[in-house]
Amino acid sequence: MLALTAAVVVLAACGGKQQQVAGIGIEPGETPSKQGVRGREFPQILPGNRVAFRVKAPGAKQVQIDLGKLYDMQQNEAGEWECVTEPQSEGFHYYFLVVDGARVADPSARAYYGCSQFSSGIEIPYPEGDTRFYVRDVPHGKVSMVRFYSTTSGEWRRMFVYTPAGYENSSKKYPVLYIQHGGGEDETGWMEQGRTDIILDNLIAEEQANPMIVAMLDGNTPDFEKEFLNDCLPVVEKEFRVEADADHRALAGLSMGGIQTLNMVISHPELFRYVGVFSSGWIASNLPAGVTPEAAAPYYDMLKARPAYYNEQFKVFYLTMGGQEDIAWNNCRIMKENFDAIGIRYTYFETPGGHTWPVWRESLYRLAPILFK
Amino acid sequence: MLALTAAVVVLAACGGKQQQVAGIGIEPGETPSKQGVRGREFPQILPGNRVAFRVKAPGAKQVQIDLGKLYDMQQNEAGEWECVTEPQSEGFHYYFLVVDGARVADPSARAYYGCSQFSSGIEIPYPEGDTRFYVRDVPHGKVSMVRFYSTTSGEWRRMFVYTPAGYENSSKKYPVLYIQHGGGEDETGWMEQGRTDIILDNLIAEEQANPMIVAMLDGNTPDFEKEFLNDCLPVVEKEFRVEADADHRALAGLSMGGIQTLNMVISHPELFRYVGVFSSGWIASNLPAGVTPEAAAPYYDMLKARPAYYNEQFKVFYLTMGGQEDIAWNNCRIMKENFDAIGIRYTYFETPGGHTWPVWRESLYRLAPILFK
Repeated sequence: MLALTAAVVVLAACGGKQQQVAGIGIEPGETPSKQGVRGREFPQILPGNRVAFRVKAPGAKQVQIDLGKLYDMQQNEAGEWECVTEPQSEGFHYYFLVVDGARVADPSARAYYGCSQFSSGIEIPYPEGDTRFYVRDVPHGKVSMVRFYSTTSGEWRRMFVYTPAGYENSSKKYPVLYIQHGGGEDETGWMEQGRTDIILDNLIAEEQANPMIVAMLDGNTPDFEKEFLNDCLPVVEKEFRVEADADHRALAGLSMGGIQTLNMVISHPELFRYVGVFSSGWIASNLPAGVTPEAAAPYYDMLKARPAYYNEQFKVFYLTMGGQEDIAWNNCRIMKENFDAIGIRYTYFETPGGHTWPVWRESLYRLAPILFK
Repeated sequence: MLALTAAVVVLAACGGKQQQVAGIGIEPGETPSKQGVRGREFPQILPGNRVAFRVKAPGAKQVQIDLGKLYDMQQNEAGEWECVTEPQSEGFHYYFLVVDGARVADPSARAYYGCSQFSSGIEIPYPEGDTRFYVRDVPHGKVSMVRFYSTTSGEWRRMFVYTPAGYENSSKKYPVLYIQHGGGEDETGWMEQGRTDIILDNLIAEEQANPMIVAMLDGNTPDFEKEFLNDCLPVVEKEFRVEADADHRALAGLSMGGIQTLNMVISHPELFRYVGVFSSGWIASNLPAGVTPEAAAPYYDMLKARPAYYNEQFKVFYLTMGGQEDIAWNNCRIMKENFDAIGIRYTYFETPGGHTWPVWRESLYRLAPILFK
């Protein structure tokens, strides 16, 4: 093993050695972050879900951790920068290291594509006994990376497709949930940050959810509706054994993906019986430059034209929010008021946590069991 | 579309906005890096394969690009740091941003697990017409992420498994190439940096390589031989339709993975007829602390005991190197001298490029066509 261990250092060929962090006195109960890179002592999850960070930036004047809130780091005797945050909520959170104004990923953490760049992720453990989002000793499905040419985007793209345990050894056709990431994310979001396969494996093993395929698409396209209909849907229905009809087709999305979902299912209700909209709603308040509330008008008009049809067609129309601290709170509130005025039925679920992945994992965990039943 | 575009900014919820880089005068022929993050102008590949970088680090005293060699960046009028490197060789290279001594990934680039941390990658275009490593309009296989419990490592782990186009719709059994990453990398290395599925799709479409399954394992384990035999091999042979015999089994690896491959196939030659060792060889020079040349002694003894058997058993024993600038050059040279002295036959191929992914892609591209024939 000596040779192998040493080989990590000797044969890595990266123009530098791995940062070796000296240990500090760690209180009992402190554990390295599950999102940390092998061999790194930090980040550390402290009792009460505070997080300790330590970074090597010998020449820096100011080093901060951006975990939604900015934390100033202090330089220790060894010249390394350290800080301990306030308690964090359970589950996955993006964070950044800010070194003299450069907002970068923490070299000690795993990187995830989010916030329109590769960001660091910290995973706060769930309460003792809550294993909904952990890999368990149950039958596991697979996640396939599929390359396809998008005529809409004019480029080769990828999608990730979950197939449940037993898919290969059956001739059965499966229903499909198509699920969309948020702004500044891509097709890897639901696979990595979302733990989609783990959530479905656990729900299916408990017979809470029916076995289903989940297609995780890349929503970064000039025209989601066109790309979905002309490029993504045909690829999934050709490459996998699916029940290719509305009764066996669901579309869900978070944030930006929730708007894509709304626009898609209201324009083409004949294609979907199941809909999930997480932490979203048409942008109706705090309007960014160039955006007007009128963006939603054509969709409200379609709903007004035949509310009974939409209520009949959508067996599940599930809206979720991360509580009042969710940045989409007002958009969703105004949308629900409009739905109520028009007479569109929906199911609403709210869990605290804001506009974050813990909320979206919970949303998928609650949506999957009511699909295709 | 306005709402969607704006939603990227409004609904990203990352405690900060995407860095907006003002354009500089760009000469004709300059192109953004294929490894860049959507919407980022830098890095830029300049004519002659020089690379232009620009980074926002307003408060920094010193900012550098580490691309094997360190390049000092200069601050422009806008306070952004810029530099242009010397010409780079074609293909994938790791690089880092060094901000006042903090060695981090470049927020404008894609991140890859390598060098024992998430590192930035820059992809230098291949010469006009060389599409061996690009996605082409040919039948595409899939890459499946498979979770399994390693009794050896005592944890849940992942492997990525390439299945060729047509796998799902046939009842045929396929041969398997098991392929290992290098030190400081993991199971994602051959999928992302290595472009394994693209290389195989292209070779199989040209009928240069036989259709095969490629299993990309995680070599970060206390005992690779034990984990391979007790955990990985059984999972692949249970989860996929494989010809489970030595005639249809190959093992290859780069750098640290090459040492794992050597140790495995020499201890268990009965299990493999095909072997690939890229940029490797037992550590025999520039010995790191704790490593002695004796690490290889037991394996040389096994070879000496029955060289004819190994020569008969290994239909392909393929060694490749990235030329004299490859950091494993001496290890491989000494190993070849020892093989020659013992009378062990091997095929040797050398391509310039050093200890880098362009060399390993080329090595796989040349190995795959001589497997299972």
